[in-house]
Order: sequence, then structure tokens, then C-alpha cells
Amino acid sequence: MPAFEYKGSELYCEDVALAAIAEAVGTPVYVYSRGEIERAYRAFDEALDGVPHEICYAVKANSTLGILGVLVELGAGADIVSIGELYRWLRAGGTAEHVVFSGVGKTESEMRTALEAGIGCFNVESAEELDALDRIAMSMHKHAPVSIRVNPDVDPQTHPYISTGLKQNKFGVSMAEALELFERPSRHRGIDFIGIDCHIGSQLTKTSPFADAIARLVELVHKIDRKLRHVDIGGGLGIDYGKGETIVSPAEYGAAVRTALAPLTSTGVRLVVEPGRAIVGAAGALISRVLYRKHNDAKHFTIVDAAMNDLLRPALYNSHHPILPVRHPDRPTSTTDVVGPICETGDFFARDRPLPALEAGELVAIGAAGAYGAAMSSNYNTRPRAAEVLVNGDKFAVIRSRETYEQLVANERLA
Amino acid sequence: MPAFEYKGSELYCEDVALAAIAEAVGTPVYVYSRGEIERAYRAFDEALDGVPHEICYAVKANSTLGILGVLVELGAGADIVSIGELYRWLRAGGTAEHVVFSGVGKTESEMRTALEAGIGCFNVESAEELDALDRIAMSMHKHAPVSIRVNPDVDPQTHPYISTGLKQNKFGVSMAEALELFERPSRHRGIDFIGIDCHIGSQLTKTSPFADAIARLVELVHKIDRKLRHVDIGGGLGIDYGKGETIVSPAEYGAAVRTALAPLTSTGVRLVVEPGRAIVGAAGALISRVLYRKHNDAKHFTIVDAAMNDLLRPALYNSHHPILPVRHPDRPTSTTDVVGPICETGDFFARDRPLPALEAGELVAIGAAGAYGAAMSSNYNTRPRAAEVLVNGDKFAVIRSRETYEQLVANERLA
Repeated sequence: MPAFEYKGSELYCEDVALAAIAEAVGTPVYVYSRGEIERAYRAFDEALDGVPHEICYAVKANSTLGILGVLVELGAGADIVSIGELYRWLRAGGTAEHVVFSGVGKTESEMRTALEAGIGCFNVESAEELDALDRIAMSMHKHAPVSIRVNPDVDPQTHPYISTGLKQNKFGVSMAEALELFERPSRHRGIDFIGIDCHIGSQLTKTSPFADAIARLVELVHKIDRKLRHVDIGGGLGIDYGKGETIVSPAEYGAAVRTALAPLTSTGVRLVVEPGRAIVGAAGALISRVLYRKHNDAKHFTIVDAAMNDLLRPALYNSHHPILPVRHPDRPTSTTDVVGPICETGDFFARDRPLPALEAGELVAIGAAGAYGAAMSSNYNTRPRAAEVLVNGDKFAVIRSRETYEQLVANERLA
Repeated sequence: MPAFEYKGSELYCEDVALAAIAEAVGTPVYVYSRGEIERAYRAFDEALDGVPHEICYAVKANSTLGILGVLVELGAGADIVSIGELYRWLRAGGTAEHVVFSGVGKTESEMRTALEAGIGCFNVESAEELDALDRIAMSMHKHAPVSIRVNPDVDPQTHPYISTGLKQNKFGVSMAEALELFERPSRHRGIDFIGIDCHIGSQLTKTSPFADAIARLVELVHKIDRKLRHVDIGGGLGIDYGKGETIVSPAEYGAAVRTALAPLTSTGVRLVVEPGRAIVGAAGALISRVLYRKHNDAKHFTIVDAAMNDLLRPALYNSHHPILPVRHPDRPTSTTDVVGPICETGDFFARDRPLPALEAGELVAIGAAGAYGAAMSSNYNTRPRAAEVLVNGDKFAVIRSRETYEQLVANERLA
């Protein structure tokens, strides 16, 4: 069953009418389907059947505690990019052991905290970072488990902002530098080299960039004179944003990964994957109320009560999100811009989109908003961030309540 | 005295060394100069000498209470775009009377609160909004003071996301529709029509778009058969972002505005202006520490501890910000990308920028960050938002303390 579907003329999340949630919690509100997160996780897991693997969920995609709690229950590990994300993961019941720590800018304090917590692996992205981690681990009389992140210089064919595996990107080290780091273990006595990793980008829709990147990793593994525990191929599997694109399925992705990794079967190396969007992206929708319509001789606008502070992706990546009326979808369509109340032209959800003609006061669902939605939200224009709700069958729970104005100024004082 | 300048080899904000603030408060931290805010406000005010005018500071540019407090002391009014901004303005000691309320998506609840507070004017942006405000005012037995926002269809020659006065933008109503709304007062008995307004965009560097827009407003005033209290020309005056562009000065802007408004001198109509960036933009810098450097055969990267969650402008508008070392600026330059720790290629502050060769551990100041910096910041990657500090002479005060992880999850619960 899809996470969001019409029953009669009403849009539901699982067995809860979205209108009932909007009524109870107000708008804008993010609504997530627990069932869809479970389904997507299992589909991903099953796609890698036969390959010894660990799924480390990319916490940055959606880090709300109530979402992390579902992943913990499913048995996921975590891919974190800050110590704040470790805090969240542990608060949600996760264990440090199944955590990999990515990111080009880990601070000394973050490394110390992660070492104390006993995380599973540091994905190290530069020689200077490796030196710093080595120094800190030595001072704590620990060995830091490390994977070297390699930049395979493979074009992921996605938005430039979320392509990360080209050499003009800030991530990882070159193949040659990785080899050099592995070959000088005596220089890093606080480091336990356990793996290599890469991540070539986000919202990938084809298998070929994954296969290309894995081929580079395989090449490297064969050159490294050391037994590795794992190869981490990052995340990046795309989801359907309703643009009519063909998106590779988890099963096709799994098949491509299995083929590309075959040369390593005999080495006993495990696979680590870091999906984020592919697990939670389709499970979320942002529910918003139409405030006003207006038009001039050039354009028609539908103004809703959600804004770019709630969902930045259209403004930042010019990304497409499906938009559905919550009630009575069967009506004539008309072309409109769906925009928010923020005083920027970049505050839009759709431009020149044919949609069922919307009326003031009615609800819309902005779909495929489970990943990089709430996680990137801000208080711009002093707007409290949207509430978040998790649906499970015919029940729903508020997993993040809307901020009060008092909370927004809690850390501030007049000079 | 400029807000930020070297004394010997140390960068200061007024009479406080930035290094001392970073030491005391940590990084990343926004530092603002009170003296520069005062200077910029007075320059703007004096530029309009001879024209009866009111400066309504655009709260969205920087809404931190400690900054609003300075504006309140200077005698500014406020241009707000949400009821959250009204809350902030009143908390900072401002009065509702000198508030204008802009924005295409005012909710009924916001209108009600604003009417109860007795704000000075609603800048109404659509016929449907006018109908809603009329209905609410009538139900409260009040008259809502209203200015109709006109979209003058003038090209502001700025970034498309912050151009707002073209007919393909969502803001305002056409000249023809404005005239029609004014001519049917009997339809809106809860409305007191007191003005017209426009806002053509942000970060404007020339006077001609302002003059063109004002000419359209003057044309409209002459057609409206009703005495208006004010004409509000919005904000939009640009600041120097260190790109070597020529930016119109407040004095040149004032002269152009005075000339364009001259035909209205005899009508007794007052001018309202809504500057934001021009008041606070140059007064702020984001201070960050260099974490690591790395390079490959294509690029050199300097990784700092601030990120796109702290300052979104480079990622969102591809905007340029000056970057200065906090100590010892006199050294050979080298070309580098300055990037943050967030796992997106869009997380950058500068690309291929010649800068004094930076070292790990040292501090940099990202300049011209007083406007649309902290106000647009988020917790993406579970990063607490930067602290904020206001400098006054040789003293500084923390006006917003860094968030704790506990605060970040305060509104959340497991399902």
C-alpha cells in the first residue's frame, strides 16, 4: 500500500485522513508513514540479500527522534555527520557501535566525544583530519577505527549541489592519496584502518555511477596490502519526485552493487551502505492550507501557509515535489504557481504547474518530503518550524510539536 | 570608523579584538557592530532629509532581539512579515503603532493579533487578502489601516530570487487592480485605505529601478480619488559585498527618491521606507575557525567550522562575501575554496578565491553577514545555530547564546 493514497475523495496517510491531522495539529505539518519507512528499509535490505552488509541510515536526511526510533527498531545503524546527530541517535535508542561518522569538518571535540562513545568507524576525509584524529586517539589511549573516504571522480549525473564524488568536490581524498595513507600505518599509531568508503552524490537515478564508483573501490582494495573489514559505498539512491523520470529501483540497485562487488567476495569484506532519502523520502508529506489565490495577466498564484523555511528544496535545488489536494482531486486543472508567505521570490513549491483548481481554505499535500524537509527547516521570517506527525495504521502521534514564539527567543537577550 | 578593521595585525570589531570574542564565546559566532548599525541608520535617515519620512526597519533581515533593540533606540519603526516578527519587535521594546505588516500570506490569526495590537498599517497584497482582512476587522468592530501593495513591473536587476517587482513575481497587485480596489471603498467597510506601497527587490545597486518604481506610484496617486497618508517605497538598497561592484550610496539613493517624489510634495503625503540590509548588512561578520586544509590536483580546500546552516546566502543566491583572516593578513595569497563541514557540495563560502594562505586552527571573518545571515540559519546536520554577539565600543555582549543539543530535541518525542 502506498503511504499516501485517496480513499474515496479523501487523501490518507495509511489509515488516517490527512484532514484529521491538520484539524488536530494545525498547518503546516509534516506527516510521515511508519509503514512506508519500514517497507522502504526492508526493500533496501532485501535488495542486498546475499551480500554481507550493514545499513547505516543517513541521519541527516531526517533526524527527528521519532523517525530515528523507527530505524533503531528496524535494526539499522547510523551514518552521522556531526556529534549532534550522534546525540540524537543515542537519544532515539541507537547504539554507538553501529555508527559511522562522515563529514569533512569533524572538530577535535566531536572526535573526542565519538571516541568516548565508542562509535564503529570514522570516515576520514583528509590527511589533516587523520593526523588530528590520530593525535586525539593517542592522547586518550584509544585506537580510532577508520575508513578512508575516497573521491572516485565519478560523475553522479545529479544536481551539482548534491554531487560529491567529483574531484572538484570537497569530499574524500584521491585514490593515490588513499593508497599513500594506508601504506604508512606507522605514522598513525592511534588509528585502526578498517575500511574504505565513498559517496558520489544524492538523488541518483541510474545504476552506472554506482557501478563505476565501486569499480574504483575494488581496484583500490586490491592495491591495499591490508585486510579490510568493510567497504562503504555511501548512499545516494534516488526516489520518485513525480517528474515522470525513471528511477532505479532498490532491487536494480542491489543487483548492480552485487555485480560490481563480486571481485571482493573471496576477501570476506563486508558492505556498508548509507541510504537516507531512499528510506524516508517517500514516507513524508508536508500538509499546508491554501490562504489566497491571485492572478495578473502573466500568472496565477496559489498562496499556501507553508514556505521555504519549512521545505527549502525547491528554492535551493529547484527540485520538483508532487502536490495533491487533500480532498476531491477530481476537478478541472489550471496552471498555477504554488508559493509561500515568505518575502522572497525563491519561496515557491511549484511554478506553472497544472493542478486541480485550488480554493482558499483547502488543504494540499506536498509529497516526497520525508527527506531533507524538516531537517533543513529554519525560522526565517520568525516562522515556527512545522509540527511533525508519525502515522502508524489508524493512529498518529505528534513527534515534534510546533515551536512557540517564546522558544524562538529563549537564547536571546537585549544588549 | 569601519565596523571591522585591522589594528596592527589583528582584526577588530570597533575596539574589541575578534579573537577575544572567539576565545570567550567559541566559533562559529556572528559579531555585530552597534556603531555601524547606528551609522548606517543615520546615513539613511539623513539621505531623506527634507522629505517627511518614516524608516520602518525590515525585521526579516536580522530579527535577533539585541539588534531590534538598537533599532528601537534609534527611533525606527518596523516592517514585519509575520506575527512572529511583531512578537519580536514588541519584546525588543518597539511599539505596534510604527509597524507595517507586509507579505502575501497573512493568516486570519495573524490579522486578528495585529489588529488587536494596533499596528500602523497592513500592506495588502491581493484582493482575497483584502476581503479576509475586511471581514475580520468588521467582526472585531475595527477599521484596518491598509496600504495596497502595487507590483510596478519594474526590473530591479538583481538575483531572480530577490527580485519582487516583476509581474511574474507573487507580490502585490497590478496598477489597474490597485485602482479598482481603491475605487470600491463601499465594498470594504472594515478597511481604512491610508497608502500605497511597493517593493521591487533586494540588493539593488542602481537608482534607476527605484526612480522607475516611484514614477509608477506617483502616477497611481494622481489617479486615486482619495487623500493618502503615505507612500511606501519598500526597501532594497544594496550593500557592498566586496565584489568590486559600484553600489549606490544612501545619499545618491535619497537624492533619486527626492526627485522622483517631487510631484507629490504638495499632496502632504509622507514617505515610508523599509530598509533592512542597508542598515545591518555591513555591521555583521561570521567568525569561524579553520579546521583542515586539503588539496588534490584540481582544487585546494579550506574547511572551516561554519557552514551553510549558519550562512545560506552563498548556497542559495551564489552570493559573494569577503573573507578576512582575523590575524596577520599580510602574507602570500593562494587560491582556495572555503567550505563548511556540511555534507553538501553547496556548503561553501567562497570558490577559487585568492586569500592569504590560511592555516588550520586560525580564525577567519566572513564579512557583510549582518543581513540574511543568522535570520536564515537552520539546524541542518543537527548543528546548533551560531552564537551572536553585539559589540559596543570596547565591550561586547552575547545577544544569542549557542543552542544546546537538549534544546534541539525539546519539542520531540519518540512515537
